[in-house]
Amino acid sequence: MPEDSVAPSTARTKVRRLADRGRYDRETIDSILDEGLVCHLGFAVDGQPWVMPTTYARVDDHLYVHGAAANFALKTLASGVEACVTVTLLDGLVLARSAFHHSMNYRSVMLFGRAERVDDPKEQYDSMIAIVEHLVPGRSSDTRLPTPQELRKTLIVRFALDECSAKMRTGGPLDDAEDMALSFWAGVLPLSIVPGAPVPDVEQPAPDYVNRWTRAR
Amino acid sequence: MPEDSVAPSTARTKVRRLADRGRYDRETIDSILDEGLVCHLGFAVDGQPWVMPTTYARVDDHLYVHGAAANFALKTLASGVEACVTVTLLDGLVLARSAFHHSMNYRSVMLFGRAERVDDPKEQYDSMIAIVEHLVPGRSSDTRLPTPQELRKTLIVRFALDECSAKMRTGGPLDDAEDMALSFWAGVLPLSIVPGAPVPDVEQPAPDYVNRWTRAR
Repeated sequence: MPEDSVAPSTARTKVRRLADRGRYDRETIDSILDEGLVCHLGFAVDGQPWVMPTTYARVDDHLYVHGAAANFALKTLASGVEACVTVTLLDGLVLARSAFHHSMNYRSVMLFGRAERVDDPKEQYDSMIAIVEHLVPGRSSDTRLPTPQELRKTLIVRFALDECSAKMRTGGPLDDAEDMALSFWAGVLPLSIVPGAPVPDVEQPAPDYVNRWTRAR
Repeated sequence: MPEDSVAPSTARTKVRRLADRGRYDRETIDSILDEGLVCHLGFAVDGQPWVMPTTYARVDDHLYVHGAAANFALKTLASGVEACVTVTLLDGLVLARSAFHHSMNYRSVMLFGRAERVDDPKEQYDSMIAIVEHLVPGRSSDTRLPTPQELRKTLIVRFALDECSAKMRTGGPLDDAEDMALSFWAGVLPLSIVPGAPVPDVEQPAPDYVNRWTRAR
């Protein structure tokens, strides 16, 4: 792994407990961000924390989020407050022999920093396309593209992937030795996000990129 | 809907934009909390926001989260700082004719308040059982139950459901009138969390409540 692909570990990003679950390489971080659909934006106003779900896209070394120009979260983030953005993928439920050792398999990324407002029209346009393409690969070439007026109605901010870390749990249950002989079933129930049948707005066969949509690794 | 089942709308919980997406009745709020598996805990320390994913369970009028006694997020929450807890269910991708009107169908709950540390051993025990049962209904009667020593190693906090609101988007794309004649496919791709085949820790048939696990409504 080349040195420049490693996000430096800082006091904020260093995984404190269960340190073997921490990952700091951009390959891991990017793969989680690129698989996720929703991020949770955290910020505080007058000491009151807010956690807002929204979609996003990663483009190179930035994560972009957008919303209406009047959106409270976006306006607050664009003002440059400290933020934390978290993306969590739930991979499975871990059923241990003891209630105490029940757990989840997951992969998450936590990103710290201040948002930058995106004012360049080309970057605004590209990031809006990137978000559509992130949600539904193939869609951006099969939709009516954004107009300058639509871009003016949209507030877009970006976060540099400078200070971020991944955390994950994989594998089976970790039971205490003295519980291993118990007869309770133990194992993992894998979970994934699966599409149902597309629901057309007007009767029209769905395109291939919709019918084949998957978030499976 | 009886009056006492309605969480009062406050300056924090009132849904500001797209107000028709806001819901304040406990039936809606509880159904989202009971379907979700992961919440995102938001809090700030010295102005720095943190957003941490974890599991939880609702019991009556409280949401319980737990972790190791040394867990940074739990210790911070137990100290009584202001918090925001968000649960988000992703129901579908909304493909509009225009890139601009792409959206997501979702249901989310946002809860504000300060955590209370749970010190009563019976409430600790019950909430640990509730979390196992919330993840895998039927499991709590088929696992080795928590010991007093395990409860001492666990930090449990609860949030009262006093100040919370739900927000949701349902239905198809909302395109501009002038885009309706465009030939791009438009509609919704429904998404849900689906279990795979259980992976046993040692060869043993999975119990019915594992094989039948579903989070479908």
